[in-house]
Amino acid sequence: MNIAIIGTGNIGSALARLLAGIKGNNVVVAGKSATDGAELAARLHADSGVNLESGSISRAVEQSDVVILAVPYGAIAGIARSVNFDGKILVDLSNPVKEDFSGITVGFSTSAAEEIQALLPGARVVKAFNTVFAQVYEQGLDFDGSAVPAFVASDSDAARSTVMELAARAGFDPVDAGPLSNARYLEPLGYLNIQFGYMLGHGTQIAPAWIRRKAA
Amino acid sequence: MNIAIIGTGNIGSALARLLAGIKGNNVVVAGKSATDGAELAARLHADSGVNLESGSISRAVEQSDVVILAVPYGAIAGIARSVNFDGKILVDLSNPVKEDFSGITVGFSTSAAEEIQALLPGARVVKAFNTVFAQVYEQGLDFDGSAVPAFVASDSDAARSTVMELAARAGFDPVDAGPLSNARYLEPLGYLNIQFGYMLGHGTQIAPAWIRRKAA
Repeated sequence: MNIAIIGTGNIGSALARLLAGIKGNNVVVAGKSATDGAELAARLHADSGVNLESGSISRAVEQSDVVILAVPYGAIAGIARSVNFDGKILVDLSNPVKEDFSGITVGFSTSAAEEIQALLPGARVVKAFNTVFAQVYEQGLDFDGSAVPAFVASDSDAARSTVMELAARAGFDPVDAGPLSNARYLEPLGYLNIQFGYMLGHGTQIAPAWIRRKAA
Repeated sequence: MNIAIIGTGNIGSALARLLAGIKGNNVVVAGKSATDGAELAARLHADSGVNLESGSISRAVEQSDVVILAVPYGAIAGIARSVNFDGKILVDLSNPVKEDFSGITVGFSTSAAEEIQALLPGARVVKAFNTVFAQVYEQGLDFDGSAVPAFVASDSDAARSTVMELAARAGFDPVDAGPLSNARYLEPLGYLNIQFGYMLGHGTQIAPAWIRRKAA
């Protein structure tokens, strides 16, 4: 699978390390400046022995089937104006959190994911991974025998399946979360996770999940 | 603890059975008509051997410290106009779901719980239990060793603590979910639970929870 990761921050780095370590994945990283991607690739190779390419955002998107947008929600409109995402599977993992972390900036009748889909009608937008702290990646996706869930929503069944497969191969428990409009509920879930992790004292080694009763 | 349950539907009945079975709780039920509460009390006594009182909504509220509103969100404004809730701890477990179940009717910059608090400034509103299916109560709150979480949000620390204690004694894992404005995220969580249970094929023996990594 050819995967581009746009964004070299905590989450972009964590996903790059995770996905580049999986056989069969070709990962290219791109950051805000021309050197960000190259620096991240060099650092991850030195730290973890994984092989990544780097390039400009346009080049990274061009050579990939799945593009993971690991930049703040506010930065996406600018990238959308200058890069062609037509035909790409575009994974949005943003939580549109206010600058003071007191709430979210979009919701209820729309979502960050739907706004991105409206900006990029030629892409197949997939909401995923927005409920996973960067610190969780650092210690791995196995919580004492339970895989961390990846909730995956999209209006494209094929794109949703592709991202669920990518997630499963990376060690997540992939959960079909239905149409992209369910990002209206997944993004509040991501924010509630931030509330528990940072404001309510649970720390960042947590993740939302659904528990189920086993058949009697 | 003196507890009033307003509403005799699936959730009201399930909570009445659960809470009346716990030593030290006095539970009074009230329904839309004068006879609904009496019928529920008689049925639960016959089925489960629990003892409940019944009465009008006004009487039930008057004699209780904690009032659980187990009626549809749309019915609450009418009750608020005719009953005095001043000084009561008022538990709202509604999910303000559209009639066609395609989404929620309030959210983002407010929530059902906050709207109820605005209607009843003399009450201490607590959001709780809105992520628990009626069918879960029927089979008990233990999911193979994990207690079903009860997320509890309120602007009153004392009211939140009281409801968390009530929840713990009933067998829930009570989770402090912070201020009442977090109902903006708990209500989408309740709706996402409905999506997984009914639209996405997981069935109703599920509940949202947070998993955590045990300390190494």
